[in-house]
Amino acid sequence: MRVITKIQDMQTEIINLKSQSKSIGFVPTMGFLHEGHLTLLKRAREENDIVVLSIFVNPLQFGPTEDFSTYPRDFDRDQSLAECEGVDYLLYPSVEDMYPHPSSVKVIVQERTNVLCGKSRPGHFDGVATVLTKLFNIVLPTRAYFGKKDAQQVAVVEGLITDFNFPIELIPVDIVREDNGLAKSSRNVNLLPDERRQAVTLYKSLSAAKETIYRGERNPRTITSLISNMIRSETNGEIDYVEIYSYPQLKELETIVGTCIIAIAVKFSKVRLIDNIILEVSQEIGGAK
Amino acid sequence: MRVITKIQDMQTEIINLKSQSKSIGFVPTMGFLHEGHLTLLKRAREENDIVVLSIFVNPLQFGPTEDFSTYPRDFDRDQSLAECEGVDYLLYPSVEDMYPHPSSVKVIVQERTNVLCGKSRPGHFDGVATVLTKLFNIVLPTRAYFGKKDAQQVAVVEGLITDFNFPIELIPVDIVREDNGLAKSSRNVNLLPDERRQAVTLYKSLSAAKETIYRGERNPRTITSLISNMIRSETNGEIDYVEIYSYPQLKELETIVGTCIIAIAVKFSKVRLIDNIILEVSQEIGGAK
Repeated sequence: MRVITKIQDMQTEIINLKSQSKSIGFVPTMGFLHEGHLTLLKRAREENDIVVLSIFVNPLQFGPTEDFSTYPRDFDRDQSLAECEGVDYLLYPSVEDMYPHPSSVKVIVQERTNVLCGKSRPGHFDGVATVLTKLFNIVLPTRAYFGKKDAQQVAVVEGLITDFNFPIELIPVDIVREDNGLAKSSRNVNLLPDERRQAVTLYKSLSAAKETIYRGERNPRTITSLISNMIRSETNGEIDYVEIYSYPQLKELETIVGTCIIAIAVKFSKVRLIDNIILEVSQEIGGAK
Repeated sequence: MRVITKIQDMQTEIINLKSQSKSIGFVPTMGFLHEGHLTLLKRAREENDIVVLSIFVNPLQFGPTEDFSTYPRDFDRDQSLAECEGVDYLLYPSVEDMYPHPSSVKVIVQERTNVLCGKSRPGHFDGVATVLTKLFNIVLPTRAYFGKKDAQQVAVVEGLITDFNFPIELIPVDIVREDNGLAKSSRNVNLLPDERRQAVTLYKSLSAAKETIYRGERNPRTITSLISNMIRSETNGEIDYVEIYSYPQLKELETIVGTCIIAIAVKFSKVRLIDNIILEVSQEIGGAK
């Protein structure tokens, strides 16, 4: 594995690889790798000739009240993990190299942002889209891998790739769950023992919603009530949101039909958990898959 | 020459050519080709394996008072001219193919726009940068050609390519001039006979400014006065602007030093002409080249 810190070196290397028709799988991260990232890397390793992992804590996507400087970093550990996953190139640029001067251009995300977690993070996805535009141009990936855990990010990236015509295949990777259904997250360690048992209800409620849609329910309010009631009765968590949208457009729905996301965020005493499921729902009863 | 209307077809073709290590020269235009465009095409033909010309009248870069629908179009003539210049691919997408739905993302140009012609065209360069981001991703050029006549556009494109790390070499192409120095433009036909003689003063005043800087003058106000006085005394034109900036940053200068642009716009009875020169100016007297 080669660690590359200079953007220009990475780009030159990649252009050379592409002239040899190598496929490039790209996993962009902010480092402090966890199991979710490793799942993306494994998938990229299976599907591409070359795997590029980038680690860059992007100041542009942090709001003024969010702490860029204390975001967790552990490059040595990340490097070992990347090596174990068979990464070919670890791109690790400095902030100075990525943003050498005030940028003359930036990307604005004008759809898909004012819902779910994005609602409380104005400008966050502009920063994400801007850094990804740069990274996509540096790494020139054939495929880019993102976890469905952050489904809104996947939706924004889908829009970025499609609407800017990036010649990149977006690969959204399924959420990794524990046997009991709890979505894996580095944040789960901050659950109290009781809360950890309760947290299983997040996925249980999403699964119950899915079953209810299977059986013919198409009213979004009925479904969000079902989920909210389950979470309120089975946990001490405080619901941040329970929302249903079209996917990846993230538009409100009158009727649950087409590709939809059901997404939830619940605050426990020391940690806020998110989870979601994406469904294909046909007009007919029983048409969900 | 192949005319391609579908974005996807163009991208597939180009990815195939790039895997054969072909260099791609790209000339993006809004069509109604004139001598300036042909100069760009000739240069692209000399320097690349493959030449791509795009013709797309981009609605995004027209303001509400600017007339997108009456912008001149003549595809048949353009196609013949392109053929003569040895273009390999003419990309001619529809508005519906370029903007199939409201875009979830756009590019904002936050520097270099609030001066020169950009000052009176808010949002114009956002539209230019957004469509170029799309076209760059579709055509994946090795080199992109732009005329220095629109020096502000070249500056904006330089920022777009550099700050978004597009793996593209920007080739700014010199202004083509008549023997008397008048910058060629399809708009020159709208000059009255008397004005046509007067219009020579635009370049004459820029050349006099250059000479004066050679001789040691470094004060921007002295230079702009010199130019303004010449234009006022030798023409009936009305000065729109005479400005000096750093280039390509387009920042105001206290002292003329480094790479600078002197740009002018003058309104004649039926037409507004622009012209500019870009200079490398050293600290020392006589250091201009």
